[in-house]
Formats: sequence, structure tokens, C-alpha cells
Amino acid sequence: MRLQLECLPCFLRQVLEATKIVNAPQDVKEVAMLKTLDVLKNFKSFSTPPELARDIHHELKGLLKEKDPYKPLKDECISLAKKVLTELKEELEKGDQREKLEFRIRLSGVGNTFDAGAYSIKDMKKLVASIKEELKKEFAVWHFEKFWESLKKAKKVLIIGDNAGETVFDKVLIDELKNYAEVTYAVRPEPIINDATVEDAINSGIHEVARIIPTGCNLPGVVLKECNEEFLKEFESADIVISKGQGNFESLSEEKKTGLFFLLKIKCPVIARHVGIGVGNYVFLSYI
Amino acid sequence: MRLQLECLPCFLRQVLEATKIVNAPQDVKEVAMLKTLDVLKNFKSFSTPPELARDIHHELKGLLKEKDPYKPLKDECISLAKKVLTELKEELEKGDQREKLEFRIRLSGVGNTFDAGAYSIKDMKKLVASIKEELKKEFAVWHFEKFWESLKKAKKVLIIGDNAGETVFDKVLIDELKNYAEVTYAVRPEPIINDATVEDAINSGIHEVARIIPTGCNLPGVVLKECNEEFLKEFESADIVISKGQGNFESLSEEKKTGLFFLLKIKCPVIARHVGIGVGNYVFLSYI
Repeated sequence: MRLQLECLPCFLRQVLEATKIVNAPQDVKEVAMLKTLDVLKNFKSFSTPPELARDIHHELKGLLKEKDPYKPLKDECISLAKKVLTELKEELEKGDQREKLEFRIRLSGVGNTFDAGAYSIKDMKKLVASIKEELKKEFAVWHFEKFWESLKKAKKVLIIGDNAGETVFDKVLIDELKNYAEVTYAVRPEPIINDATVEDAINSGIHEVARIIPTGCNLPGVVLKECNEEFLKEFESADIVISKGQGNFESLSEEKKTGLFFLLKIKCPVIARHVGIGVGNYVFLSYI
Repeated sequence: MRLQLECLPCFLRQVLEATKIVNAPQDVKEVAMLKTLDVLKNFKSFSTPPELARDIHHELKGLLKEKDPYKPLKDECISLAKKVLTELKEELEKGDQREKLEFRIRLSGVGNTFDAGAYSIKDMKKLVASIKEELKKEFAVWHFEKFWESLKKAKKVLIIGDNAGETVFDKVLIDELKNYAEVTYAVRPEPIINDATVEDAINSGIHEVARIIPTGCNLPGVVLKECNEEFLKEFESADIVISKGQGNFESLSEEKKTGLFFLLKIKCPVIARHVGIGVGNYVFLSYI
């Protein structure tokens, strides 16, 4: 999915948010904005939004002298998600096998709300506070039948994770998926925005239910030609790939792989236009 | 009110919106974004948001070769407001003199929703469609008692207008106010965003109830040292000034003038923080 002009103001906002998380002083905030304006001026040289995001956040991390400025937020989101989970204990065990799986895919999709790239932190926290309400929403696209049929024959499932916090709900989904196939969970190789790294995945307990691998691609998405061999092997050999969130969708939406499913919340008008589904909706979608 | 870093992404979004209104081709949109990024880099040399807005929209008008890119939107908003008005006929005549005035001030305040600077056009249209619902909202600040007491003694009232569309509701307010005092209505001397000019005020029928004057200040607000003599004379001699909207608030909030009332919708977090009232609320407020 190509970078759009609408993405530019969104990146500028994102950077300001990041400087607030680390309580940067005003002069550092100002320099961060100036540096971002400089990177944005080259917008035509970037293909997808995650590629521009990488350069912007690389500049930012250098300026803030912080390898992982979103760390406190990520930890908070993981704790918050764990708390929500304890309140969902009963719902998680309801129904037959199929219904249990459906519920957990919905939960993992709704978890995609933990996105400090698409939302301001204030808005994200407000939305996350009503996550149980969100769970009641019908998905706008729900290709579960196709998924269910594929899963029955599948040996290997690869999940490409997105945000920290969401990871806690992904763990619950894997807990069910591993009754059907071997599950691998891919994460970013280094911190970028609030996307999950190996450390965040472990803090979410994913190591208890799946093998965790870094993609090798250091942007908030997955550009295959930048990924490491281990990830590419998993991607190719997996019978089912569940790509989570907007960033992974932006970089993988043109891939022609059988069994590639996208599970995300539509959070911005650019993606809404591309998918043909309004902002605020959830989709579980497979093009092939 | 000082320009804040949060204003920068908002301006970038605003420019893109403006290029869409005039259906600018993609290459013009791209140049508009590049030019805006250049202006934004000088953010430290601007004092208030309307001052930066002036430079940005000046560049934009030159690039688009359009003196008034928002003209079609302004006309649409004026028509829309007139339609809403026909549906409010009964409510407008309800109650005693005081209640009638209160209702019309609320209507004029709610009319401040017609703001293509603070909102995307899509969001604005959505909000405007539910304007009768908005009218049911309590104002978060309501200094009507003070206004009422001042009005009884007032000879001259000056209203500083804001957006086209809103002007239609202002006319209805003036219709009532002129039972108490002589009313003058000030507008921008030239087109900027969707702010009302003399032409827009006339299209809204304001010339039937008040004298219309341009402020002389060509930004989406009122910087007194840039205003013309006629406006300054009115501003100084008015017993009551009603300053409408965010742009006028941003540039006049520090003025120490007795009888200066601000009537606006809080539409952005920067102003919300300054006033201490949450986004989405309406205020009718006097500091002195």
C-alpha cells in the first residue's frame, strides 16, 4: 500500500506524542519536530508508510538518546491487557471448539486497538478502557469459514505480531491454535513505536505457547526483501499466516500467498479507503 | 495564546483538505505539502496560530491560483445553516425576552461548529448534520448573567464573526440584540480558510440587521495592531464585544477589555488546555 499525503500530518503528530512519553524538554521537542519536517520533505522517496516511519523514528531515537522511548507505555499496555483478560475468564471458555476459536480471533483483532502509531495515546487509552464493549462489535469482514477450513489441514501457523499489549490477547489465541498446528510468532527485531519486540512478547507470555522469532526487518511492518532467512523460511512454509495490524497490512497487502489472513482494526482513512471499510471497524480478511 | 507544537500537524492536514476542496491534481497537492513543510520549519517565528495560518494559506492561494479556495464550501455551509434555521422556527420564538436571547446565543455558539480549520470537512459535515442535537448540550461555561446585566446598559455591541455558515445563526442573534443596542458585525478583509468575508456576511443576510465592517487584519483571527482604524474605533467604543470562535480567541484572549465575551466551541486540545474545558464543549465566557 503506497504512502499517501494524509500520512504526513499523522507522522508529525506521532513524533510529538513520542517526545511526550519520555517527558522530553521543550527544546528537544522542537528539534524533533524540525528533524521530522526535514524527513517528511523527502516523502516521495518512500514507498509505504512503515518505510517513512522507520526513518522518522530512527532520527527520533537518536535525538532522544532512547533506544525504546515507548517502553513505559508498552509495559503499561501489557499490564492493562492482562487485567482485561482476567475479566474475560468466563467468555474465553464458552462454546464448542469452533466458537472458542472465533472468540479468540475477535479478541486478538480487538487487541489491535493498542496502537500508539495510529492513535494519540490519550485516545488509545480511552478506547482500550472500553475494550469489552468493542468485543461486542460485529467484524466488518469475517473470513472465518475459509480460515477454519484451512486450519483443519494446516501444520504450521505463523502470526506476525503488531503492538505490545495486543500480544497478551495473541497469546490466548495461540493457546487455542496450538491444538491444531505448530505456531510461530514473529516480532520486530528492534523497538519501533509501540510495536512488540522479543522482550515484549516474552513479557506477554508468548514464549510459553509459541516459538518467538524476529522478522529481521526494522520497520513497523514487514518488507519481505528486508527480512532475515529464518523469518522468510517460516513465511514461505507456513500454511496459514495471520498478519496483525495496519503496519503489516500496509507492507504485505500486495503479497500473493495462499493462507495469508489480515486481522486488524481500521484506524485511519487511508487504510479505510484501500480496504473499502470505514474507520473504527475490525476485519479478518484474506484476499486469496 | 501562543502557537503550540500540536498546531503543526493540524496545519499540514488543513492544507491537504484545502487542495481537495478545489480538486487540485496530485502534483499540486504534493507541492502544497512541500511548501507547507517549509513554512512550518519557521514555526518559532510566529506568535499565535492565526499568524502561521496566514502565511500557510497565503502560499496556498498563490499555488492554487485561487483567491478563495473555500468559496464552494462556504456557500454550501450558508445554505445548510439557512435550512437548519427553517426547522428551528418554533424554538426561536419560544419564551420571554431573556429566554429568547439565551437560545440565540446558544445557537450562535453551536454554529461555531462550521469550522473547516479545526475539523476535516468530512467531520465538520457530520457534526453539522446533528446541529439540533448539539443545541441540547449544556454550555460548559455560561456567563450569561454578566452579559445580560451589561447588555441592559449597553449602547453598542460589536460581534467579531468567524466562519461562513455560522454567520446565518449570528444574524438571528443580532435580530434579537438590536432590540437592546446598535450592532456592528466585523469580518475578515479577505478570504482565509472558511472564515466569513463581507460577501459571505451579506449572503447570510447580516446586512439587513447590522453594519458590516472588515477588521483590516488578514489572518483567521484579530491582531489589534494590524486592524484598520474603523474596526479599532468600534472595538474601543463598544460596550460589549462578542468574539466568535477559536481564531479570534487565540488572538484576543489576553486583551483586557471590559465587556469582551468569547463565544465558541472548543475544538482542539491546545485551546481545551488553555481554557481548562474539554474538547467538544461550548463556552460563553468573559475573563473580565
